[in-house]
Formats: sequence, structure tokens, C-alpha cells
Amino acid sequence: MSVSVSPPRVGVWLIGARGSVATTVVAGCAAMTAGLHAPTGLVTETPLFTDSGLPALATLVFGGHDTLDCPLPKRAEALAAGGVLPHDLPAAVTAELAAADQEIRPGGPLPGDTRAPAELIASFTADIQDFVRRRGLTRAVVVNLASTEPAPTGTTTLPPSSLYAAAALRAGCPYVNFTPSTGLHHPELASLASSSALPYAGRDGKTGQTLLRSVLGPMFAQRALTVRAWSGTNLLGGGDGAALADPAAAAAKNAGKARVVADTLGTAPEGETHIDDVPALGDWKTAWDHIAFDGFLGTRMVLQTTWQGCDSALAAPLVLDLARLLARAHERGLTGPLTELGFYFKDPLGEGPASLGEQYAALAGFAERLRPRRIPRQRPGLSEGGPA
Amino acid sequence: MSVSVSPPRVGVWLIGARGSVATTVVAGCAAMTAGLHAPTGLVTETPLFTDSGLPALATLVFGGHDTLDCPLPKRAEALAAGGVLPHDLPAAVTAELAAADQEIRPGGPLPGDTRAPAELIASFTADIQDFVRRRGLTRAVVVNLASTEPAPTGTTTLPPSSLYAAAALRAGCPYVNFTPSTGLHHPELASLASSSALPYAGRDGKTGQTLLRSVLGPMFAQRALTVRAWSGTNLLGGGDGAALADPAAAAAKNAGKARVVADTLGTAPEGETHIDDVPALGDWKTAWDHIAFDGFLGTRMVLQTTWQGCDSALAAPLVLDLARLLARAHERGLTGPLTELGFYFKDPLGEGPASLGEQYAALAGFAERLRPRRIPRQRPGLSEGGPA
Amino acid sequence: MSVSVSPPRVGVWLIGARGSVATTVVAGCAAMTAGLHAPTGLVTETPLFTDSGLPALATLVFGGHDTLDCPLPKRAEALAAGGVLPHDLPAAVTAELAAADQEIRPGGPLPGDTRAPAELIASFTADIQDFVRRRGLTRAVVVNLASTEPAPTGTTTLPPSSLYAAAALRAGCPYVNFTPSTGLHHPELASLASSSALPYAGRDGKTGQTLLRSVLGPMFAQRALTVRAWSGTNLLGGGDGAALADPAAAAAKNAGKARVVADTLGTAPEGETHIDDVPALGDWKTAWDHIAFDGFLGTRMVLQTTWQGCDSALAAPLVLDLARLLARAHERGLTGPLTELGFYFKDPLGEGPASLGEQYAALAGFAERLRPRRIPRQRPGLSEGGPA
Amino acid sequence: MSVSVSPPRVGVWLIGARGSVATTVVAGCAAMTAGLHAPTGLVTETPLFTDSGLPALATLVFGGHDTLDCPLPKRAEALAAGGVLPHDLPAAVTAELAAADQEIRPGGPLPGDTRAPAELIASFTADIQDFVRRRGLTRAVVVNLASTEPAPTGTTTLPPSSLYAAAALRAGCPYVNFTPSTGLHHPELASLASSSALPYAGRDGKTGQTLLRSVLGPMFAQRALTVRAWSGTNLLGGGDGAALADPAAAAAKNAGKARVVADTLGTAPEGETHIDDVPALGDWKTAWDHIAFDGFLGTRMVLQTTWQGCDSALAAPLVLDLARLLARAHERGLTGPLTELGFYFKDPLGEGPASLGEQYAALAGFAERLRPRRIPRQRPGLSEGGPA
Repeated sequence: MSVSVSPPRVGVWLIGARGSVATTVVAGCAAMTAGLHAPTGLVTETPLFTDSGLPALATLVFGGHDTLDCPLPKRAEALAAGGVLPHDLPAAVTAELAAADQEIRPGGPLPGDTRAPAELIASFTADIQDFVRRRGLTRAVVVNLASTEPAPTGTTTLPPSSLYAAAALRAGCPYVNFTPSTGLHHPELASLASSSALPYAGRDGKTGQTLLRSVLGPMFAQRALTVRAWSGTNLLGGGDGAALADPAAAAAKNAGKARVVADTLGTAPEGETHIDDVPALGDWKTAWDHIAFDGFLGTRMVLQTTWQGCDSALAAPLVLDLARLLARAHERGLTGPLTELGFYFKDPLGEGPASLGEQYAALAGFAERLRPRRIPRQRPGLSEGGPA
Repeated sequence: MSVSVSPPRVGVWLIGARGSVATTVVAGCAAMTAGLHAPTGLVTETPLFTDSGLPALATLVFGGHDTLDCPLPKRAEALAAGGVLPHDLPAAVTAELAAADQEIRPGGPLPGDTRAPAELIASFTADIQDFVRRRGLTRAVVVNLASTEPAPTGTTTLPPSSLYAAAALRAGCPYVNFTPSTGLHHPELASLASSSALPYAGRDGKTGQTLLRSVLGPMFAQRALTVRAWSGTNLLGGGDGAALADPAAAAAKNAGKARVVADTLGTAPEGETHIDDVPALGDWKTAWDHIAFDGFLGTRMVLQTTWQGCDSALAAPLVLDLARLLARAHERGLTGPLTELGFYFKDPLGEGPASLGEQYAALAGFAERLRPRRIPRQRPGLSEGGPA
Repeated sequence: MSVSVSPPRVGVWLIGARGSVATTVVAGCAAMTAGLHAPTGLVTETPLFTDSGLPALATLVFGGHDTLDCPLPKRAEALAAGGVLPHDLPAAVTAELAAADQEIRPGGPLPGDTRAPAELIASFTADIQDFVRRRGLTRAVVVNLASTEPAPTGTTTLPPSSLYAAAALRAGCPYVNFTPSTGLHHPELASLASSSALPYAGRDGKTGQTLLRSVLGPMFAQRALTVRAWSGTNLLGGGDGAALADPAAAAAKNAGKARVVADTLGTAPEGETHIDDVPALGDWKTAWDHIAFDGFLGTRMVLQTTWQGCDSALAAPLVLDLARLLARAHERGLTGPLTELGFYFKDPLGEGPASLGEQYAALAGFAERLRPRRIPRQRPGLSEGGPA
Repeated sequence: MSVSVSPPRVGVWLIGARGSVATTVVAGCAAMTAGLHAPTGLVTETPLFTDSGLPALATLVFGGHDTLDCPLPKRAEALAAGGVLPHDLPAAVTAELAAADQEIRPGGPLPGDTRAPAELIASFTADIQDFVRRRGLTRAVVVNLASTEPAPTGTTTLPPSSLYAAAALRAGCPYVNFTPSTGLHHPELASLASSSALPYAGRDGKTGQTLLRSVLGPMFAQRALTVRAWSGTNLLGGGDGAALADPAAAAAKNAGKARVVADTLGTAPEGETHIDDVPALGDWKTAWDHIAFDGFLGTRMVLQTTWQGCDSALAAPLVLDLARLLARAHERGLTGPLTELGFYFKDPLGEGPASLGEQYAALAGFAERLRPRRIPRQRPGLSEGGPA
């Protein structure tokens, strides 16, 4: 008699679960699982990750925190109207959107909330643990997709992103910071991070202009061309545009962009990078870069690039990639900062390379690390150290 | 008593020796040797090649073939007036330009020249051998910089580029084809190439738009983004623009450009590439690329690039790099196609990678191959196989 | 007893009635009539035409010829899926699309059709007359929106566009050639055009790149800046892209584009204009222009423009404008080429200005001409010369 | 006996006489007078001004105020090295540059200068009057080319630009404010301006991005296309870049740029304009504009422009035009603000049109006004009101 066994299911807990990126993640995962769309943009679906043991897309279960109320199916309709999602997709995956919507819990603190940080962390932890238990999940990965916070000003108060990060670790979940917000990077969380023996990754998803910079910078460096000035302007609407119109939030974002240039060139050229809130663009982003460089004998030349992309569509497959990678890393018993994931971030943890090509090579090495070791026949007692 | 010994001198024999690129090569080498300009654009002057044993710039001696008459100092003045060379450079290096000018011999065949191919090859070979002998050179490298020939139409006649290539090998010189012309790629030269035991490299220097494509293509591939159409337009004046206004010549050039896209993406997207002759631009080139790609769930996005460069200034440092690398390869006894030099070419010999990052890694490996082997003390009899 | 009187209705007979532009015209007119969308892009809805007596959008009745079979509602669905029409529009105006679909008659000649030109003209004429009669229309305007024909090669055979143009005049209808095809510009139609006493307008709607050129050209001329080279590339998919991939058809289109530059600058600069068929772009068009100009003391400067538009959305409001203008011109008794309508065309009839600003002033004058004359009380016998 | 009579000579007194623009003005005027260069960029040399009685270029005599010491011939050498002036021009016009250099007087107030505003005005007035007297000039025009001042903050202190403006009027000279600085726009100067009976013009020369905006804005408006957002970034080095890196100075400049958009569109769209100081660009400026607009049925489209120009070369011919126009206006007895000169300014005086085409028409009318009236024979008593 044969018994049908369901594969273990893995949770993906999104901070900012009603935002554009989160909605695209949930709708897109359902669309690919249903065979409606090819997995364009998912590096984890390329041959690089064959046999790496990643959880299948169909096994992912979504939930999360948010401070807003708009139901996911309605949010998806709005995104489709703006051309971010295919216009017939929300209807096709409405059940999956509604299911995820049921698993979204109130975030915080909202204005007027007088709970102390420890109370908030405890409450968020309980939400995550409840999600894992009720849904019978093998494990869950927490991903921060909330709006960028203002850069910290030196006070010791934990910002919301750090409260959520602490809750993730308390709940025993791997953590990904897809934003430039503080998250785990707070001194008060250092001992928790090191004692929790969980894998984590970040910061700030590398989706557009910085992705481009991470291949152009190395090109100039490898060809021994001297970049004199690298200037840029980003136009974006949506929630991200409004959040980054706050100069303090933009400063956090821009630090990452400038770092990629300086790291790949080996020197910091002249030039500024602007982020403008242009509500008329909705979820679409335009990034213009102007790179003035010197060639042979000081001859002045210029490269300009214009990148027109949809931020949610650029971010969503990376979020799915990272959730799967962290889940498998957890399964394999990896702990601490996953420095091989610099491919995905503007401001990667650790001292890895800044060039996309080298980051891709590091990712390939990581894919290999995730693969099950072949157990030699002669030594059956040997086992790997993962939490199984 | 100490004796001052001059280092051995190395010849650089340029086909198209009175062209913009050749003039920039000669003037630039002199300018750097005199300390007037930093070696911007020369990869062989970066730490990658420390201790690789390359001939110093100061040891290079220039000569070549050309069918034109304009003296190099005058040509340099014209380039300075057009902003290609710094405006005070021609005066500063006039002696070096005049010296190279003395070593330029008439090319061919010109219209009306009735000599048979074998006679032309013999004549060119004698010119090169005479140069090496008279100037007391250790060796010489032949570099093809002549205007792009029309793509061959299947006849068996050797085009001029092949006559020069044959002469290079007959004269015992390493050969570099910096253009898309036939050169050594002619069936009649196959046995000569294999029997000559000389190193050679090519084809078609990767200076601008294709350089960019060789980093952008891998970016899309590594991120699993689907490129739907890659279109481009090149505007250029100068001799190159006029030569490429011939559709047959442009076809040869464009084949290389398209190949880089197809090789790095793993598939050939829609789109054409145009080359327009715009005399008003002089030696300056503008290349516009428009890349339509699909992201997550088929969301349509666009990257556009505009590259504004000076072709001679982009090509000249690569020519100096290649002359030095081939000279050293010859010294080290390397023979046949140098497939590790794909970094420099649109259409590299052999089956190497098409991504610039991987080509750079291959170049680093080549730099290592060029280094003298450390001779273990216990085995002083061991020597390397180079022609010494 | 009061009697409700419907306003007179005006026919719009579209050659190429199942194409993207025609579908957008019909759907858009219905959408504006229903108050679903503002009349963006319709110059005839601006204050310039207040009291000019134009027929209201709600009075327009659509029909036409086409050689294809796809029903308009289905065509509209496809356009909505491609982002050309708002995604909920086809459903909202499906009745109007179906009504227009009923009035589309087979065009020709299709391959194998052996009818003589005179027979085809007679057949087309009968179709139009039948439409006017059955629908009780006061008048109808014929607008050619069919795919661009190859430039005529000197034979005297009437191309299809000329057959339709002849039919329009035979049926007593004003005619607009919105394409660069021959239409009324055939020597055999000259006497018909002059004897028919009907107004007509053309050629080739000025929708994107040429619109831009018609304001940039005058800017350079008025500032006494010398344009050295004006180069351009158009990328477009859809039916238009495929039609213009035929070099002969593209030649017709490009002649108009170059003429605008030459006419506004007073001289023809260097540079080419390419039209590439890029099916991946669908109905969207990208036009890049590169303008090299000299400033004071010959200083070289560059302006580049990138125009990303939807061809159907750019053309449709101009088609509605022209149908209304020609209908009113007919009502007012105007005859022959309407040279004041150069605002709308790449290659306007007559000797009008090429600068958009001056063309707009001419259009304002035309708006005035269309206004009813105030009839002085003392001279009640005076009447205007329209066909009433 | 015939007597050779020199034409009357006209002074051009430049505030900021050692800056890039002033140096280009002086060198360029000499170059054109000597026949070395065509008058590219001078509208006053086009047929529009035939018979308008403008002073010939050869009759202009230059002087001015500056707080710097660098001699003009040396300044010109630096500009030639940066590609702003043709590289052989400084040598060819060194005498004219030296002559102008002799007529430059110290500006102020420099730090530590304790003179009261009235003293400074008196000193500047004396400098100008001395220039006119010594050089035997018929009249002189004062043009403000000094670095942009911070936007006034409400205090009543006269900024330097207003001190110079007051001096111009006191000295009986027409005045042009080619910058966005306060100049004559100070309440304390209102009565002086109205009582002096002198012509004046301003503010802020329209050289690049705003020039473009003044033709693109009308295009969108005339075609009834809705501009949703107009964003822009300017990269510039040179003194101007450094001055405008001060946010207060940039604010003054940007106000003019935004005004052109709002005035031509009839509404102010979303979007910001940045000015970045990029010293590596020297005197060259790159301006990128991104215009998001809606077409028919709300279809979203985008126009992007990139303008790469040399600011001094763009400004200098306008300065020569304005000096000649104001001189002739003075001769013809015109007084007060010359509102017909909006063609030249970002922020024109008076209520004229904002569209370049209409401004050009107004300029043509002004050219006509400058022409000598033909005095009818029968009415010899009629005379025009100029100071003759």
C-alpha cells in the first residue's frame, strides 16, 4: 500500500506584508506554481541551483506583519491597474492572496501605542510562532520589506525594523533584511544575533541602478579607465518614492549606492545621487546615470544609462530566492551572516566582492554548499550537522 | 668596471600605420615614456601584470605599412585639432613621430598594382625583416589596424589583410588582428599558421559598445532576466565611419557585436545594430543601445545606454597591451591562438567565455603563465622552453 | 408640443478599420462620449475650437474597409492586454465596437482578386454610399489608416491607397491620408481631385519623432545654431513595424522625417534615420535622435532625445480631430487641399510652414475660418457658400 | 575732399569681466571681427536684424568689473585647454584680450571692505564714466555676468548685483541682467529705474535646458497632451557649478527653470530639478530631462532629453546680441523694461509669452521697432523721439 506524503512546508513571513513587493511575491509565487508564468528573474530556478535542495515554490506559505489594512486581493487589483501585475493575474490567484491575507497580523508600533520594546518584540514573536504552529511549517524565514526607515541618529532606542528582527530570532527563524533599515545592525541585538545560531542576510536588495553599477564599475576598473564623476538621479513613485523623499531615509539608501561605486572602482569619484518622489510614475522607476571617465591620454568620455523598471517586479523574485536560500541554509545548519549572498544586496554583510560577476561566483559556491553531501558507503556513521 | 646594457628592444609593426589609431599608439607611447601622461587604459600597467616580464614601453620601436602618404607628425596635428590628442602633445613628441614615420613602408596592393599575391607577401615580409634587422630588435609583433575590409564573398583570393598576416608569419613575427577583416582566418593560411609555431590573437578590438555589451549581457543572464530585443545604433565619423558605411564592411563588424550578445545571453534576441557614417563627428563615436527585457511575471522593462567615446583613444592602449603581451608570449615560447586574450576582442579566437568578468579572470591566468618560473635551487639544469 | 430633434450624424469611414489605430479611435470616441476618459490629445476639444461648429464626438458613426477578419471587440482585447488601451475599456465599450464592426466591408485587392481598378473603385464607392444612406448620415469623412505601402516605383498602376482615395471622392466624401502612401497623390487622380470640389488633407500623421523635430528644428534655426548631423533610430513593433521593415515602405516614411528637419533648418544636415521592426515592443515605439550642432566659435555640442510612446494612442486623437475638421470644412463649403492643417502631418500639402508653432498659428486661423459668420441684420439675403 | 569718418564706438561693460563667459565674449568678438569664425549663435547677425541699425561687432569696446586678478589672455589659454575656445584662438586675439584687460577695474565689496553701499555705487559709476570718456564712446551697455548670488532673504541690504545695477543707471547706461541675481529687482532701486529713462533687460540668460523647455512645453500644450511630471538634473563644473552648489543660489536658478515649464504648460507638473557641481566636467554642462506625460485615454508616455553643451559658448553670443540690442534701443530712445526680449531670458521682464516661437515673433517685432522710420517727404516736421 502506498502512502502519499506531502512535502514539508516552509513559511515566508513578510514584514510589510501588504506592500507592493509583498503582494507581488505572493501573487507571483501562486502564478508560477499554477504554471501561469515562467520563473523569470528567479535565479534559484536556474541550473545553478539544481540539486541544492531548495524548498519548492509550491511548498511556501505566506504571512506577515503590516500596519495597513488593505486586503491583499484588493492591493493586487490596484497593482494590476498600474501595470505592475498582469491584468488578469489578481483574479487567477485570488484564493492564494486571500489565504495569505488571513495570515497577516498588525504591525507596530502605531502612533499612540505605549507598549515597551520588549512587549512589542514578544507580541511579534508570538505571531510568528503561532503561524508556524498552526500551519504545521517545518520552518519559516522572516523577510523585512517594510518602507525604509530614516537613518538612525545615534539614540539607543530600537527602531521598528530592529524589533521585528529580534522577534524573528526569538521565534527561531532565519532573517533577511531586504531594506537599508537597521534591522539586526543594532548594537543591542549583537549578542542575540550571535547566540541564536540562525543564518541571516542583508542589507538592501540590489534591484536596479545599483545592479547596473555593480557590473559597470568593474568594467572601468578592469580596463584601467579612470572614472572622474559618477552622477545619478532616481525617479520613483509608489510608497518607496514617498518614503525616500525624506532626506534621512534617502541618505541610508544612497550610502549603499555610492559604496558599490567606490568598492568596484577602488576610489570614490565626484558626483551625487538623487532620489526624487514622482507620484505620477507609480511603481515604476527611472534611474539615469552619467559617468564621466578618462581614457588614454586623459581623453574625456561619457557613458550614460537609463534604467526603466518596475521596482516590485525587480524585487519580488529576489525575495523568493532569498527565502528559499535561507530556509535551506537553516536546514543545512548554517549560522550567522551569509556573506556569499552579496549578489542580492547593495550593502552586503561581510567582506565579499562588490563586482556582480564575482558575487555570482560566490553564489555558485553557496549553491554547492547547500547540496547534500554524498555519504561514502564505507562511513555510514558520518552525518552532517544540520538541524534535520 | 660596470657596463651599461641597454634592454632588448621590441618592434611593433602596424598595418595601417598612418591611421588615427596607429598615430595615437605612437604618440601615446612616447608621451607615457616621457612621463607626460599616466598610463590610463593600459591593463598591462596595472598590478595584474607585475613581474609578468612584459617589455617596457620605452623599449618599443614602431614601424609599419600604409597606402597613404601623410606624415605622422602632420597626422598627429590633425588629431589634436579634433580633440583626439591633447593639443600640445604633437609638438612634445614630434621626434618620436618622425622616427616612426621613417619606418613606414608602402602597403598595397593599390589600384593598378599587378603583382601576384606571392610577390606582395614576399615584399611585405622583406620590409618587416629589414625593420627588425636594421633596428637591432629582439623580435617584432605585427598588428593589423587597417580599415575594415568587406566581408569575404567566398572567392579564394587572399584579401590584403591576409597578405599582411602571411607576411607577418613568414617574417617570424607574432600577429594580432585588431579588425574584423579576414587576416589569418583564410583557409589558404591554415597550414602556415599551424606550422609557423608563432603566437597570434584576434579578432576585432573590443573598444566601446561591445565592451559594454560584454558586461550587460552577463548581468541579464545571471539575474535570469529575459532579454527580448537588443537594438543599437553607432554614429561615427573618421575613416572608420566611411569604411563601415559600406554595408559589406559593416556586416563583418556587426556579426561580432551580435555574437557577444548571443553568447552572453545564451540566446539571440530580436533587434538590429546600425553603423552610420557621420563625418561631422570626426573620430568620436556615439553608440546607443536599447535593451527590452522581461522581468518577473513578464513585466516589460528597458535599459538604454549611450556611450560617447573617442575610438582611437579607446583602441590605442589595447594595441599597446596586445603588442607587449604577444612579444612576451613569443619570448616564453607560446604558440598558436592565444585564447586567453578574449578580454580584448569582439570575436575572440577559440572557445573562451564571452563575459568580460570571466575574460578578465582568463587574462589574469595568462599573466601568471607569462611569469618566469622560479628555478628550484636543487635543479639548476631545468630551463623553460621559450626561444630565449 | 415640443419635439426632440437628434443632431445630424457624421460618418467616419476608416481604411484599415481593424488596425490598432482604428480600434483605438472607435474605442476612445466611445469612452469619451460615455465620460470615462478626458479628451487628452484632442486639440479639437481645446478652447481653440470653441464655437467652430465641429460635430460632437457623440455624433460620429464609424465604419470602414479592411482586408482582415478579426472582430473589433477582440482586437480591442488584444490592445488592452498590450497596455495600449486601459484594461477595462474593451468591456465598457463593447457595444460601440460591435456596432462599428458591423459597418466594416472587405477591402482589397487581396491576392487572386482579378477585378480591374475601376471595378474596385466602384465597389468601394458603393460601400461608402451605402453606409451613408443606411445610417442616415449628413456626410462622411474617409481616413486612410492602412499600412504604409511601398514607395511607388514609377509605374502608372494605381496602388490600393489611390483606389480608396478615388472611391472617397466618388462617394462625395472629404478625404484624409494619415499615411505616407500615395492616396490622392497619383497623377491619374489629379483631375478627379480638382473637379470633385471636396476638401482633403494629408499626408502622414505627425505623431512622435517628427512632432519633436518640428519644434527642435526651429529652435536651432532661431538661435542661429548650426546643426551638423541629425541621426535617428525608431524601434517599433506591431503591424507598423513589420510594414516598415520593408525598405521601400520605410523610404516613404523617412522622406517625411528628413523633410521636416531640412525645412525647419533651411538646410539638410548629415545623418540617417532608421526604422527597425522589433516585434517585442508591440504597439510601443521608441525613437532616439542624436543632433550634433555647432555653437559659438564652432564649439561642438549634442542634444539627444528619446521618445517612448504608443503609436495608436498618439495617432487616434489626431484622426478624430481630422475627421471633425474635414466634416466641418465640408459643411462650410471649403474645397481642395487644406493647407492650414500642416500641424497634423509630416508631409503637409501645400507650402505652409514646417515649424510646429507656426503650424499651430495656422490651425488657429483655420478654427476661425470654420466659425459661422455673423449674419448682419440688415442684409438677411447674404448667405455663406456651404453646401448646406 | 573726402574725409574718412570712424563709426561711433560702443562700450560693453561686463560685471564679472574675467569669468568664462566674459572671456569668451571678448575673444569671440575679436575672432569674428577678424574673420576667423562665422557668427554662429548670434541672432543679431541673421537676416532678422538687417537694417535694424545695430552697432557693428567691430565697434564694440570691452571693459568691466571683477574681483579676481587673472589676466584675460591667461584666462583664455585655460579655456582653450578645456576645449571651450578653439585651441589656437587665444594666440590669435591676444592683443584684443590685453586691451580689454586694461579696462577691467576692481569690483567689490571684497571681505574687509568697509565702504558703505553709496560709496561703492559712486566708485563703480565713476569707473564706467571714466571708461566711456577715455575711450570716446557714444554709449556703453552694462551686462551682469557675475556668479549667481544667493536668493535674497528679505533684508533690505543691497546685494552686490544691485550696487552694480545702480551704478549702470547712474552712469547713464542701459543695463542687462544675464543672471538670476537681484540686480535692478530691488525695491530700493525702483524709483531710480523708472526715473533714469534708460532701457534695461533681464533676467537670467536662457542658454540650455530652459531653452529646450521653452519649445517642448508649448509642444505638449498645443497637442493637448497632459504632462504629469517634469524632472531634471544638471551637471556642471566651472565656477557656475561651484556657485550653484550653494542651495540658496540654486534655488534662484531653479525658480526660473520651473517657471518656464509652468508658464508654457499652463500648470505646474510634479518633479524636481537638481543642479550638481561636478568639477570634472569643467565648463561643460549636461542636462537630463525626464518628462512623463499622458496621451489619449491616459496612456503613459515618456520623453527624455540630454543636452550636452558648453555654457560659455552658449551664453557668449546672447551677451553680444543683448549688448547690441540695448545699445540700439538706447539710441532709438526706448526706455524701461524691454519686454520683447523674452527670447533671451529664463525669467523675462513683463508679461510676454513663455513659448520660444512666440518670443521669436516678439523679437522680430522688436527688430522692426529698431529700424529707422522712413521720413515721409511731405511731413518733414515729424521726428522720432530718440536722443539722436
